[in-house]
Amino acid sequence: MTRVNENYNKLQAGYLFPEIARRVGEFGSANPDAKIIRLGIGDVTLPLAPAIVDALRAAAEEMGRETGVHGYGPENGYDFLIEAICENDYKARGVDVAADEVFVSDGSKQDSGNIQEIFGTECKIAVTDPSYPVYVDTNVMAGRTGSANPDGTYDGIRYLPATEANDFAPPPPEEPVDLVYLCSPNNPTGSVASRANLTAWVDWARRNDSVLIFDAAYDAFIQDDDLPHSIYEIDGARECAIEMRSYSKRAGFTGVRCAYTVVPRQLEGTTAEGDRVCLAELWSRRQATKFNSVPYPVQRAAVAVYSPDGRKQTGEQIAYYMRNAALLREGLGAAGFSIFGGEHAPYVWMKTPVGMSSWHCFGELLSQAHVVGTPGSGFGAAGEGYIRISAFNSRENVEEAIARIGRVFSG
Amino acid sequence: MTRVNENYNKLQAGYLFPEIARRVGEFGSANPDAKIIRLGIGDVTLPLAPAIVDALRAAAEEMGRETGVHGYGPENGYDFLIEAICENDYKARGVDVAADEVFVSDGSKQDSGNIQEIFGTECKIAVTDPSYPVYVDTNVMAGRTGSANPDGTYDGIRYLPATEANDFAPPPPEEPVDLVYLCSPNNPTGSVASRANLTAWVDWARRNDSVLIFDAAYDAFIQDDDLPHSIYEIDGARECAIEMRSYSKRAGFTGVRCAYTVVPRQLEGTTAEGDRVCLAELWSRRQATKFNSVPYPVQRAAVAVYSPDGRKQTGEQIAYYMRNAALLREGLGAAGFSIFGGEHAPYVWMKTPVGMSSWHCFGELLSQAHVVGTPGSGFGAAGEGYIRISAFNSRENVEEAIARIGRVFSG
Repeated sequence: MTRVNENYNKLQAGYLFPEIARRVGEFGSANPDAKIIRLGIGDVTLPLAPAIVDALRAAAEEMGRETGVHGYGPENGYDFLIEAICENDYKARGVDVAADEVFVSDGSKQDSGNIQEIFGTECKIAVTDPSYPVYVDTNVMAGRTGSANPDGTYDGIRYLPATEANDFAPPPPEEPVDLVYLCSPNNPTGSVASRANLTAWVDWARRNDSVLIFDAAYDAFIQDDDLPHSIYEIDGARECAIEMRSYSKRAGFTGVRCAYTVVPRQLEGTTAEGDRVCLAELWSRRQATKFNSVPYPVQRAAVAVYSPDGRKQTGEQIAYYMRNAALLREGLGAAGFSIFGGEHAPYVWMKTPVGMSSWHCFGELLSQAHVVGTPGSGFGAAGEGYIRISAFNSRENVEEAIARIGRVFSG
Repeated sequence: MTRVNENYNKLQAGYLFPEIARRVGEFGSANPDAKIIRLGIGDVTLPLAPAIVDALRAAAEEMGRETGVHGYGPENGYDFLIEAICENDYKARGVDVAADEVFVSDGSKQDSGNIQEIFGTECKIAVTDPSYPVYVDTNVMAGRTGSANPDGTYDGIRYLPATEANDFAPPPPEEPVDLVYLCSPNNPTGSVASRANLTAWVDWARRNDSVLIFDAAYDAFIQDDDLPHSIYEIDGARECAIEMRSYSKRAGFTGVRCAYTVVPRQLEGTTAEGDRVCLAELWSRRQATKFNSVPYPVQRAAVAVYSPDGRKQTGEQIAYYMRNAALLREGLGAAGFSIFGGEHAPYVWMKTPVGMSSWHCFGELLSQAHVVGTPGSGFGAAGEGYIRISAFNSRENVEEAIARIGRVFSG
């Protein structure tokens, strides 16, 4: 009989967000009059910017004309989009990225989940803890780990705790690791890596011949222009880092789906015999075989993000969410909570009252204030004792949530 | 140093379509006045139908309104699309498929490439030969094969030759195999599986506890209503078959990207210890972890295919391509070629003149008639001696190609 991939059995049964949905649903059924405010899942709430809508509409109309037929697109993206990426996201910040190093995709979730496929199953993985669950789960599914422990960790993965003591930006480990997933601005902690932290990582990776997977899906939320937006702003990063960017949060594309991954041409892995292999070639082959390009209208929408109107409108959206984040920092702080993140990221990382677990605090927020946060422990063992609060909501809801939490928890 | 997935090294260097592009490019540079007609790659050439354009445009505009925000979609597709699929593609043909058995995706290439991830690496694979290269290549990349042999086959894969003698629909093998990829209407041979052939496959799979991956990406081209469109029209198929469908060829979505896969709830695999595992659960977990749903406007466009206007307009497009196929069958036959397929598929499978290899014939067609076909040998060893001619082109080009081939090859 046909054997299944048994690594899937190692995955923990209850994925975080369905479990939250279940508990919120239960509470809602029992309390039908409660006006629940959801600051849990990190999904955008503003409508698509007019420049994006115009681009989608124009591309749809173009595809309906005989002169505008667009079938299978170039495997790694249309030149018009790749050129805009190289020019605006990199050259404008003094970074050279070549067109054949950019791979346009339908999401950073996919890219950060698929990237491990080009590496050997024997690779040792490290993640900062807490982290986006896809990094770990896809490596579990590929057979790079043992079973799950009671605290949710997996044998065979090196967890690097992100703590108050290290400003939620852990330094490299002492021992060598093959692949490390980094995310800045960070989901879920809302922290941002400093130039010094990223430099330490790049130096470490080059010294150990390791590969960094740098997830910069939230780079547009960085408010200080001196902070690195790209890991390639760090000397030597082209020899050790893959970078991922997304339009999801930057331009409200969670329901439109466009992102890209950069794999520098000089970045290499090795065979068992020690032959060096160009990782960009492997990723190109992976994408050519298991992917089939992003819809033409979506690529037209993505390039509109770089137009003067697109820039202005999406910039206003980011500012709107960041104002929410500032209000949350201020309001939750005033309610007595210790607050981190939220300065260069749309997430506030809120410490639970002393001795209260993430899930307990989640329950209190829900039952007392009718506000949904995300238990930090759902992102990893080191997230225990924290709640992630998302700034993706209307100003009105954010203000109301702060007021309710203030009434319940302060004084 | 970070080890790469060395299975990628087993893949043959020259993928078919880039090699064709290179040879056509060379010929075009040397013969700048030649008006080359491309009947090679199977990409649509008609513009999107008005009903599809309208749906894309309306969804884009909706997403620009405060009341129309659509962020992350339901992981496996919006209910409006899944319900239309169950109703129109299945119930209308007497087949029951439940909503939680349908998984909407961005393409059958992706689905047919990703599906192997939920199975054990020890699974024995069979493919009909010739076949769509993704079936084999993704299993090579996952480590289920040995190296490539000089004829392009891989050790560890069971090839089932599709020949004139078996009407290009091979019967099941004598020995058990775990996973079999079937495609009907077939790419590249343009043949279609009869009810008897599919029944033999389903009976064999149930007897051997095997899983069939049934790729029905071209089902809309079936002209005879008595032929099965879905493998689930065969008794017992729900216990042994996964089915894939696509809007790519059916509605010109190659640049829009939407497809779906059906995994019946009673379909099971097994663990090493013999525990039975629901494959729909595994696929759901795979998609939830490594995929992030299809753009909202694209799902709106897909459901428009089922509207009265969408049906009529896409039906006319299919009829246009099928008229091309009929002209190709007739014209190439009159030029002296033995012709197969093209009656329920947009591909004609043309036998090369006696003793002439696929690539030699490709070269003759290109240099003498300035027409591009696809060498059958590129799809597998049993494709040697054939050329795939695509009906996806304008009537004018198809007629001109036929006239030129007639002048060069007949008489």
